[in-house]
Amino acid sequence: MKGVILSICPTARLIDLTHAIQPQNVRQAAYVLLSAYSYMPPQTIFVAVIDPGVGTSRKPIAVQTNHGIFVGPDNGLFGYIVKHVEVRKVVALQNPKYMLPAVSATFHGRDIFSPMAAHLAQGVAIDQLGSALHRLEMLSLPRFEATSEAIHGEILYIDHFGNLITSIGRLTWNADDMLSLVPFFDPQLQTDIPLPKAIRPESCAVQLANRIIEPIYLTYSAVPKNEVLALINSAGQLEIAVNQGNAAQALNAHVGQPVTLHLNHEDYS
Amino acid sequence: MKGVILSICPTARLIDLTHAIQPQNVRQAAYVLLSAYSYMPPQTIFVAVIDPGVGTSRKPIAVQTNHGIFVGPDNGLFGYIVKHVEVRKVVALQNPKYMLPAVSATFHGRDIFSPMAAHLAQGVAIDQLGSALHRLEMLSLPRFEATSEAIHGEILYIDHFGNLITSIGRLTWNADDMLSLVPFFDPQLQTDIPLPKAIRPESCAVQLANRIIEPIYLTYSAVPKNEVLALINSAGQLEIAVNQGNAAQALNAHVGQPVTLHLNHEDYS
Amino acid sequence: MKGVILSICPTARLIDLTHAIQPQNVRQAAYVLLSAYSYMPPQTIFVAVIDPGVGTSRKPIAVQTNHGIFVGPDNGLFGYIVKHVEVRKVVALQNPKYMLPAVSATFHGRDIFSPMAAHLAQGVAIDQLGSALHRLEMLSLPRFEATSEAIHGEILYIDHFGNLITSIGRLTWNADDMLSLVPFFDPQLQTDIPLPKAIRPESCAVQLANRIIEPIYLTYSAVPKNEVLALINSAGQLEIAVNQGNAAQALNAHVGQPVTLHLNHEDYS
Repeated sequence: MKGVILSICPTARLIDLTHAIQPQNVRQAAYVLLSAYSYMPPQTIFVAVIDPGVGTSRKPIAVQTNHGIFVGPDNGLFGYIVKHVEVRKVVALQNPKYMLPAVSATFHGRDIFSPMAAHLAQGVAIDQLGSALHRLEMLSLPRFEATSEAIHGEILYIDHFGNLITSIGRLTWNADDMLSLVPFFDPQLQTDIPLPKAIRPESCAVQLANRIIEPIYLTYSAVPKNEVLALINSAGQLEIAVNQGNAAQALNAHVGQPVTLHLNHEDYS
Repeated sequence: MKGVILSICPTARLIDLTHAIQPQNVRQAAYVLLSAYSYMPPQTIFVAVIDPGVGTSRKPIAVQTNHGIFVGPDNGLFGYIVKHVEVRKVVALQNPKYMLPAVSATFHGRDIFSPMAAHLAQGVAIDQLGSALHRLEMLSLPRFEATSEAIHGEILYIDHFGNLITSIGRLTWNADDMLSLVPFFDPQLQTDIPLPKAIRPESCAVQLANRIIEPIYLTYSAVPKNEVLALINSAGQLEIAVNQGNAAQALNAHVGQPVTLHLNHEDYS
Repeated sequence: MKGVILSICPTARLIDLTHAIQPQNVRQAAYVLLSAYSYMPPQTIFVAVIDPGVGTSRKPIAVQTNHGIFVGPDNGLFGYIVKHVEVRKVVALQNPKYMLPAVSATFHGRDIFSPMAAHLAQGVAIDQLGSALHRLEMLSLPRFEATSEAIHGEILYIDHFGNLITSIGRLTWNADDMLSLVPFFDPQLQTDIPLPKAIRPESCAVQLANRIIEPIYLTYSAVPKNEVLALINSAGQLEIAVNQGNAAQALNAHVGQPVTLHLNHEDYS
């Protein structure tokens, strides 16, 4: 893919975001992309290839936004991103002029996405690549439900340290050491009670299976080595970790497992 | 290695092709290089370091071709490539002027291949690097034998998804949904009967141990999730896969295991 | 991190040194950095993020030396390097002007180290980043003790081939096939007897647990496939390996395990 890109656009700067997505895990890829995109230079062209349906009727697409262009399969991979950016145009990648001469049925990353991205980087207008598309494939959103006493979520993914990143967030530390909560994912769909305005971290308890983890800390080192803790990760999500250890192994956890943030009957008015 | 290259040639563009070759697996490396080289920009200098014999009498070499220059150990690593490109010159890398001042016996990638490649990129002529070499180390070719009823091959390598890439290929889909076969590896050595002119994929059956897999599909998603299938991969090789799963685990397969493509008594005249 | 760097310094050349450090293994990282830094271009800015104490009182620092600038946490990561280079200035990274606007407590690599490094690359003077620091966190040095009969060390780290790199070195092959020893790590602290001036490799025996490995070879291929051997690695350290195999598995070895180089009653006058 990089060879194809540099053959077409020799001045392209290439950044490897990650090669560590689990095979076919579109949801993990969508989350990692969401966590990282805003740190990339403004005109970045993102090429993403988690593509179990390659060669089938799922469309190759490009999504132009106010924060760069996203190129890849229309399988939900951009389903989280498009809830956070302003989408300006979506096209189905159809114009053979901007593909490799021979397109395989099993590696569109090399044969379609990379050359299309390289031509975009060379200044080709997105309209040249194919016709407009008016609906994107979406992922079902991860669990995020609020009551007055708790936020219910799930383990969204497990990183290479074994940290458990949950769907509960985006949580931000305030100046007064309280946490404010602005849902990472579209909240309207999932809750109809008002979210707490501020959360007192020392009053919280995180529940995973029968385990209660409390309170919420700022850093991994807030607890002794090998102890379990809850904290807010660098993307603003509630995370369960083991200081200098592997939480997934220690807690026998898996993606999709329910996690609850108990708010402990505090007053959030 | 990258530091050495950029110290000598600050304008070099570096592409990481792969760091996932199994330790010492020269044959896997030779195949991956063969699958990828033609997608790199035309004047690319390839540096490859799968080098179990580092420091012994195996020679460090550079191979100038019509599609870039290949730099690495003369241990067969370029043995597949040179059957697909026009070789113009081969030299043994001997000139200490273009090596690092201290050459270790265990890391020629850093001490010889990288600086030689960087000097080539800076415009040094290949003749300056050492004297001409007239014979390259070759790999024994993977099994590829034809009868009128079947093509016999083997598992060439297993990728990180667990897909089984076989030595049977290069197979290309024709406009009429037939497959044409042009051997990836030198056919004269291994078969003296004419190869079929066209193969009807729906008449084929692939055999791995006692398992019969049929027909040959275009895409992974042609079968339900977790089902085994045969298809043509993006390099044109016959591949055995599990849709969104791991074929190597599911079929308990290993590199070198025989694979047969039964042509089913069709008429290929 | 790369996105942050290129957003600030679009012309930066990025080299990935390694992503394969064991989680939280500061000592392994310090050794890998030490082995590699001198091969990077002279003005390189090194960003290193093995940072189990992220967000605690450990300081983010930049260390200006005669061989580039090192940016990362003050947790010992640069504790080996600074024994090999001339340290010119150390600053604590405090100036919010050169950090990201929002600094998380769990990812200083992205929020502090990367933007600071990018501003350095853009020409910002190190003094602008924070105030001078007069003491660096050091690692306890790996074991290295000499008697007239032996050098005692330990397994420093295990690489991805399973090779065992020891703390015994730096050993260099002389023109007369003898080895000379200049301690990689500060020797005064650990031994008060003179080190041998030259070591005859064929008189040496390496001991790991009850296993005796002799002599010291130049290359992996000096022994048949799958046999254990001792050799000097490309960083000058004594290494125990298995030719085309995995020594860590074969010998059931672990980091920190004692290793002895018996000098066999030779005369080193």
